[in-house]
Amino acid sequence: MKVIPIERRGHSARWLDQTRLPVEIAYCESADFREIIKAIKRLELRGAPLIGIAAAYGLALAAQEYAGDAGKIHRAGEELKAARPTAVNLAWAIERVLGQVMRAGRSDAEFIWSEAETIHEEDRALCREIGRAGAALIGSGARILTHCNTGALATGGIGTALGVIYTCRDQGKQVTVFADETRPLLQGARLTAWELQQEGIPVTLICDNTAGLLMQQKKIDCVIVGADRIARNGDTANKIGTYSVAVLAHYHEIPFYVAAPYSTFDVTVATGSGIVIEERAACEVTDGFGCRTAPMDVAVYSPAFDITPVDLVNWYITDRGLIPGGREGRFEFERVRCSGT
Amino acid sequence: MKVIPIERRGHSARWLDQTRLPVEIAYCESADFREIIKAIKRLELRGAPLIGIAAAYGLALAAQEYAGDAGKIHRAGEELKAARPTAVNLAWAIERVLGQVMRAGRSDAEFIWSEAETIHEEDRALCREIGRAGAALIGSGARILTHCNTGALATGGIGTALGVIYTCRDQGKQVTVFADETRPLLQGARLTAWELQQEGIPVTLICDNTAGLLMQQKKIDCVIVGADRIARNGDTANKIGTYSVAVLAHYHEIPFYVAAPYSTFDVTVATGSGIVIEERAACEVTDGFGCRTAPMDVAVYSPAFDITPVDLVNWYITDRGLIPGGREGRFEFERVRCSGT
Repeated sequence: MKVIPIERRGHSARWLDQTRLPVEIAYCESADFREIIKAIKRLELRGAPLIGIAAAYGLALAAQEYAGDAGKIHRAGEELKAARPTAVNLAWAIERVLGQVMRAGRSDAEFIWSEAETIHEEDRALCREIGRAGAALIGSGARILTHCNTGALATGGIGTALGVIYTCRDQGKQVTVFADETRPLLQGARLTAWELQQEGIPVTLICDNTAGLLMQQKKIDCVIVGADRIARNGDTANKIGTYSVAVLAHYHEIPFYVAAPYSTFDVTVATGSGIVIEERAACEVTDGFGCRTAPMDVAVYSPAFDITPVDLVNWYITDRGLIPGGREGRFEFERVRCSGT
Repeated sequence: MKVIPIERRGHSARWLDQTRLPVEIAYCESADFREIIKAIKRLELRGAPLIGIAAAYGLALAAQEYAGDAGKIHRAGEELKAARPTAVNLAWAIERVLGQVMRAGRSDAEFIWSEAETIHEEDRALCREIGRAGAALIGSGARILTHCNTGALATGGIGTALGVIYTCRDQGKQVTVFADETRPLLQGARLTAWELQQEGIPVTLICDNTAGLLMQQKKIDCVIVGADRIARNGDTANKIGTYSVAVLAHYHEIPFYVAAPYSTFDVTVATGSGIVIEERAACEVTDGFGCRTAPMDVAVYSPAFDITPVDLVNWYITDRGLIPGGREGRFEFERVRCSGT
């Protein structure tokens, strides 16, 4: 992939400011972990796997700043975890690094940099495995609908849902993609369309409200989305609009796939109702793109995510293989729980 | 209603430029029917009933310019009809006025002005009847989802779907509204939210992709939309996204109502597949908000309308009363056809 959304640069982290795509390819660089927190909040860094990786780099920056003071590093970890609430990866990455710190009895910056880079490298491998598992579901000629951005810009590797698409392409399958623009912040228009163009994969951009019509016209063969957190019963938190697409796919008898690292399953949460859904600021809906597009003081409801129940999913595509969702019979929770993370 | 979207001003027509709402309340005035055509194409004038009324005013302007030359007026009528293809009202209004011209043997401007004003006044009355018929379906406390703009800005009166809501309010019912923003041109955010605010009706703006979540959360009691053209079998062309909302309402067992003048039924079209769907320019999706939000040269699919099959509709709310859709049993085509227009 041509895109590197974050990397270590000496004593700094350097990241692509995704809010400026596709108009500008602009990088930020900082040695201050607070800048990583801001970048995650502002969605300069976004995508569930990527914000986990970014948070780990943030922890390395904190370890530098605090010269290995474990108490202060832990507090920085708490601040990093609080940057966004919904994706499992943020807390998971921080807890993993801090666990290693405890076990190794080392809290120096180089140790944490190395742990962060390990997480990054592992995510690259996870994406490859997800891609391989998912490509088995897709035939040549498939017309695939996706929502939001789940590619190289959202992960440490080729992506989750888009990773499946890239793997199909690498296997010589002809695939075409319809990308939901994904309001309010247009990750589909700004990021997915751009990323697929860079990779030479045919993509057609649509407004979110056009997906149903395309399905009615029999122009969609399957839907692949990512996930920010999956409850123990398979209920899936993902970008707002995913649930509507899942209902539409069910109604039109089109397969619906969720592609995510196995670690997205959060066994501490029983069902989707236990997942905290972040609400975003009204201005993202009313003033998103340089001009006011709604009356002043209008009430806005803008959740960042919704919950797709397990019964609307055909397959979970993970780095540990395919797990059947409710539309393929019974969700095999045992298989998830017994494998552990 | 405080809003007057179009009116006669001496020898000119004066209209509210709806593309500038809600930031600016700006009027245009012209005595040239070509400016009416441009205004309809640019969506300065939009909404199925309103573009019919506007076209009739345009014909009066043509009659002035051509000093009553019937052949030239007919040709102007053809140009006006071609401004947008989907809504039935445009062709209907032009044909009605030209029919009167034929019958009366008069093609002078004053005669046509008077016919145009009659159409406008009749639409005002139709809206009142639609509102009365629809309000019978709505209880106090109802939380209503609507899509696009179907109010005073879209008609000659209080509106169709919004007219039902205004009538409920006038009857003392407490109603609250969720307005889909309605991509790409945000008629819901720019027009519906503004109009409802002006009228003091509580409104919450959502992105189109959030309607499913609200239904899942049991926050929607019914959906009311307008219609641009309804085929003989009840299939309904309306703003893109309507079909998705109808599927979602069906899945969640939420009533789905189509409010439109009886004349929206086009008995010359057997089913929805016979309705021509206008495609809009890609730039409305990629450059809509004052900045580029998608990569250059990306393919875009942007139909202006979609078709909701009769089976997803509970009731058609018309000025001639309620007509049951497929979700209430059998669509009563006989009742439509026998009444004639």
